[in-house]
Amino acid sequence: MTLKKSKDIRELCYPFIYERSPLCDHEIITDELCTTLGGAIYELEGDERFKDIYDFLCELQPKIFHLNASIRGKQAIFEEQIEWLAGYFDRYQQEIAGRIKGFVLPRGPRPVQLLHSCRSLSKKAIRAMVLVDAEGIEVPDVLHRFANMLCNLFFRLTVVINGRLGIMEPEYVSKSYKSKSPSKLKQESAKKVV
Amino acid sequence: MTLKKSKDIRELCYPFIYERSPLCDHEIITDELCTTLGGAIYELEGDERFKDIYDFLCELQPKIFHLNASIRGKQAIFEEQIEWLAGYFDRYQQEIAGRIKGFVLPRGPRPVQLLHSCRSLSKKAIRAMVLVDAEGIEVPDVLHRFANMLCNLFFRLTVVINGRLGIMEPEYVSKSYKSKSPSKLKQESAKKVV
Amino acid sequence: MTLKKSKDIRELCYPFIYERSPLCDHEIITDELCTTLGGAIYELEGDERFKDIYDFLCELQPKIFHLNASIRGKQAIFEEQIEWLAGYFDRYQQEIAGRIKGFVLPRGPRPVQLLHSCRSLSKKAIRAMVLVDAEGIEVPDVLHRFANMLCNLFFRLTVVINGRLGIMEPEYVSKSYKSKSPSKLKQESAKKVV
Repeated sequence: MTLKKSKDIRELCYPFIYERSPLCDHEIITDELCTTLGGAIYELEGDERFKDIYDFLCELQPKIFHLNASIRGKQAIFEEQIEWLAGYFDRYQQEIAGRIKGFVLPRGPRPVQLLHSCRSLSKKAIRAMVLVDAEGIEVPDVLHRFANMLCNLFFRLTVVINGRLGIMEPEYVSKSYKSKSPSKLKQESAKKVV
Repeated sequence: MTLKKSKDIRELCYPFIYERSPLCDHEIITDELCTTLGGAIYELEGDERFKDIYDFLCELQPKIFHLNASIRGKQAIFEEQIEWLAGYFDRYQQEIAGRIKGFVLPRGPRPVQLLHSCRSLSKKAIRAMVLVDAEGIEVPDVLHRFANMLCNLFFRLTVVINGRLGIMEPEYVSKSYKSKSPSKLKQESAKKVV
Repeated sequence: MTLKKSKDIRELCYPFIYERSPLCDHEIITDELCTTLGGAIYELEGDERFKDIYDFLCELQPKIFHLNASIRGKQAIFEEQIEWLAGYFDRYQQEIAGRIKGFVLPRGPRPVQLLHSCRSLSKKAIRAMVLVDAEGIEVPDVLHRFANMLCNLFFRLTVVINGRLGIMEPEYVSKSYKSKSPSKLKQESAKKVV
């Protein structure tokens, strides 16, 4: 059996919604990511403490739609966009350097919560790309590299925003994995990816 | 191996949670959709500017649970409910006619964000129905047609709410697909589904 | 084809993000659950009416990360944690006893919305465990039993919070399934799991 498209255009939300390929799921997830990011942008708007983040996210948002369309359509994310993103990664990594040692329990107000959702959605986008690739559809490397960096950057932004607001995330100690000693972590903090 | 249900009723959140069928996932997603819609309803409550939308969504909400249960249980969404929904689609389409030309970047306050989530969840519900159908379980056409129209209508509601609040979504120009010229879009705007 | 990890640590958000196993998805979902719970905790913080719930959720949050890591890493959720959780289940079940008769339409302010999301994510975590188990990876029973109880408990917390705020969820009557009569439900309410 195969579900059929309606001929009433009001009853078709996306031309590929009925296809079996996980590519459609990649597109649904990255659309959700773009939308959730739009929510975070709205929450930060007009707050002088976060103007740099607001400006960055506004410039980032259309690139999420480029990520969305770069497998089925013409590729629109390249090495250049990764380098652009890496600049912001390094900048915000520097701002939080030494503040996060090991794992923490997520906390924070609305924009932080939305950026954590963006972080989850970035991971889900990579997982969808893994499935798309497994079906034999070409996924340019730059796309999943971009999504990985996005995820890591969104985490840093949650720590930056909390930091500027004076909110501390409680520490988390794993019982399943051995953690590194704080002193060793300190040495590594410049390059650490939590 | 198969995970087994606990005999302690406190440890069973849903009778079908352990089944392999994607039908359970359809039910989880439509439950999430009903819940997220409840959040949007709460945010709009008591605001005179959105009273018509509030009333409509209150009437819509139980129908999402009907959609949820209409595959495993007795069908409870029919042509009549699609026609009812189409009336609201046309009404809100008319309100935004000419305002959205081409693609936009999602923005907006809390109820808008929640309605965008409802839009994503409507798509995921259709995707789940595609999988349910592929397993040989009958999915009445009216269910996925209803979910498609829901998705398109939720988008329109985000534009309506933003419009009444004076919020403009920034324009988005795709680098992956050729867009139609604004003038051509204008001619088509009456029937356009973004 | 197989997507390859980048050697730039900034471009790797999770060591197992490229694996084919659904175990990675279990970990993404429980991470999302822990994060969403952090959002709910933040919303309840400092409100005396919900101090008991806040304290409970703060104690619960690290256990979600234990749940996350207890399949790939060393098991960190045991019978003891289920008993601990059951104590809170019974306590909040008692607070709402008789208030919820049959199904309701979800409603409520931000912390309630986030706890409903936690409820959905608990179900998705179980669904991921069903897939992990189907791949032949051992899932200790205590983990999915814990996630089931979490889901049921999150529902109760939404009713508790609404109750303390004087918010009533509208009743929902299914057209797909026969409901039990209110009088029968009343008799059962002490043990009912909605």
